[in-house]
Amino acid sequence: MIPFAYTLLQRDPHTGARAGHFSTPHGEIPMPAFGPVGTQGAVKAMSPEELEEAGASLILANTYHLYLRPGAALIARLGGLHTFMNWPHPILTDSGGFQVFSLEGLREVDEDGVTFRSHIDGSEHRFTPESVVATQEQLGADVIMCFDECAAPDNRAYSEAAMERTHRWAVRCHEAQTRSDQALFGIVQGGIYPELRAKSARFLVELDLPGYAIGGLSVGESKAEMHAMLELVAPLLPEDKPRYLMGVGSPEDLFEGVSRGIDLFDCVLPTRLARNGGLLTRQGRINLRNAQYAEQAGPIEEGCDCYTCQHYSAGYVRHLLKAREIFGLRLASIHNVRFMLRTMGEIRQSILDGTFAALREEFLSEYRIIPHAAREAERARYRSGTRSLKRPQVAGNGSLGGAIEDER
Amino acid sequence: MIPFAYTLLQRDPHTGARAGHFSTPHGEIPMPAFGPVGTQGAVKAMSPEELEEAGASLILANTYHLYLRPGAALIARLGGLHTFMNWPHPILTDSGGFQVFSLEGLREVDEDGVTFRSHIDGSEHRFTPESVVATQEQLGADVIMCFDECAAPDNRAYSEAAMERTHRWAVRCHEAQTRSDQALFGIVQGGIYPELRAKSARFLVELDLPGYAIGGLSVGESKAEMHAMLELVAPLLPEDKPRYLMGVGSPEDLFEGVSRGIDLFDCVLPTRLARNGGLLTRQGRINLRNAQYAEQAGPIEEGCDCYTCQHYSAGYVRHLLKAREIFGLRLASIHNVRFMLRTMGEIRQSILDGTFAALREEFLSEYRIIPHAAREAERARYRSGTRSLKRPQVAGNGSLGGAIEDER
Repeated sequence: MIPFAYTLLQRDPHTGARAGHFSTPHGEIPMPAFGPVGTQGAVKAMSPEELEEAGASLILANTYHLYLRPGAALIARLGGLHTFMNWPHPILTDSGGFQVFSLEGLREVDEDGVTFRSHIDGSEHRFTPESVVATQEQLGADVIMCFDECAAPDNRAYSEAAMERTHRWAVRCHEAQTRSDQALFGIVQGGIYPELRAKSARFLVELDLPGYAIGGLSVGESKAEMHAMLELVAPLLPEDKPRYLMGVGSPEDLFEGVSRGIDLFDCVLPTRLARNGGLLTRQGRINLRNAQYAEQAGPIEEGCDCYTCQHYSAGYVRHLLKAREIFGLRLASIHNVRFMLRTMGEIRQSILDGTFAALREEFLSEYRIIPHAAREAERARYRSGTRSLKRPQVAGNGSLGGAIEDER
Repeated sequence: MIPFAYTLLQRDPHTGARAGHFSTPHGEIPMPAFGPVGTQGAVKAMSPEELEEAGASLILANTYHLYLRPGAALIARLGGLHTFMNWPHPILTDSGGFQVFSLEGLREVDEDGVTFRSHIDGSEHRFTPESVVATQEQLGADVIMCFDECAAPDNRAYSEAAMERTHRWAVRCHEAQTRSDQALFGIVQGGIYPELRAKSARFLVELDLPGYAIGGLSVGESKAEMHAMLELVAPLLPEDKPRYLMGVGSPEDLFEGVSRGIDLFDCVLPTRLARNGGLLTRQGRINLRNAQYAEQAGPIEEGCDCYTCQHYSAGYVRHLLKAREIFGLRLASIHNVRFMLRTMGEIRQSILDGTFAALREEFLSEYRIIPHAAREAERARYRSGTRSLKRPQVAGNGSLGGAIEDER
């Protein structure tokens, strides 16, 4: 068996979409795939069995969060992340680059690495490309990520400098890797600047890594800008390696990304939305906390095959969310994760069947997309509110004030 | 079939313990039994399937909470509580008396009923014996409770007046009942005063109700006082009816209560403790948040057959609790509920086998009991802290500030 081989099964005749699978030591990932995010070692509110039932083939975890708490060495001593989480299928760990660079005012970058303060207790820490690889080797995921510098999308000079540093760090990550049972993916950076993105893709392809991610997107740029970058970068990446669009996205993003050759996605959106009462349906996102659902005896979505819709009325789930019941967060999360995974399953099957373009047209004509401005406002609210990665509680008791939010 | 028949299977030769079962329209409840509490229509953090797997034969819900939100008429329109919660087994609803009388300063009692303000939004409401029965008929539980006045345990005059009113209200509840598929239980009151308790038991027995509860205990009196009341009251209750000790209790309380002839218990303790990191073991309660469990690769309790202990290390569950992950609340709750139900199952089997006294001695010699003072301090902390039944947010957004706590 060739470890980490991407097998291409079918190419869509009308778009850049492709179907295949990626082999890992913990099983095959059918692609295109969507990975639910278990930032701190658990997909929020969900059990491994519920994730399996929802159709998850891989899940993600976060190096920054797990490094800080409970610590990667501890996880290694308890048998590694698969055992720790009781997830026997593929896991991908993000490198923590995105999180560290989100800590504005609390981190200082130099050529060798980044010094930052913990969002939990304000303690000082340092990440280097070598340390991040070592941490990910302790965690033991199947796919690990290079340590990258994620620049704001609208500053060309910084985007270029960050991209160049990301390249030098990718070389160091590659050289630092000691385990052969983990696939180290490179991360293409370069903001919204075509020439930078092209340069980044070409540089990383030279390293001959087993997979490539496209980073630094879905961070505030427009959808058109994101699509342009995907259209530019994907064709520059090798056909025999998976292409991973990091931190994306919404249901419509799956179609847009797959159309442009993306094989892998991850996002906290389904679980985070769920906890705030945002439920995904083929017609678009609904706010289940609205009064109109109070008396709905039918499920959240007619015909949905998820555990929630098979067993509970929309009225019940709404009640639990209004009453802040934990079980409501579970039921909403299960529905949304199943929605994303079922949609991705339909996408993959349609590529195999040669009907992807039709499915895409049908889906996008039905699905009401949240306008960019509303989406950005929501993101800003979330960042300034419960997310609090930027607001450490130095003297605190080790917990985020009132927040059970701590994703991506 | 006789509805609501209590069948006595075995009497313990050495104590007042007895084993039997109670038939309801939704199945038999093997007794003695412990009922996990789903105050707002969900046992906190747990699914019906998890409750079944943990061995629950009945669960409780609360009339006060469900009346306020989402409303009993709404639940009736959505098919009743069993359908609403997806729990096809027996359900018991408490009458809300305990909750309403907990609203000190926010309720006014008169002979006809109680006017009170909602802890959710400060709105004014009124409960009468008739309205509370009507509400419980809308909810549709198998066992419903009389509306009672729960007095502070240390005031004889108030205890007597409250008891007398409870008796008059019991008669009215009994007369108000229109559904024959629900068992209306009477509630013995009388504080810690033997003559009042005896009078209350005798009065209620005259009503020939299908079951009797002992209320107003575990509200601050000593264990010795509670035991004395049980020893007095249980023998006055009919042998062919179940005896229910409300709101009790801890693992040791199960043994003490069963020894004194109690058939049914309920308490939020296992789930509330779990969410605060308190895990039940045969040696007593442990605080899983303590550093000593960080590296524990074994389960929370060796030999435990719960889902949590079968699949996760203590170190993982501790990490999730420290990181405020919802899945940690689930895993801890599952362990504690299974602990209570397994213990109750062992108690019942030992009665059937004639070995209850030995099991009781073994259990109580191993299990480290929380001292009364510490328990009361904990209760006081909880009441003044997250519970907030006494502190309505009149102008709020309809949710308890920051609290996902909302249990009896």
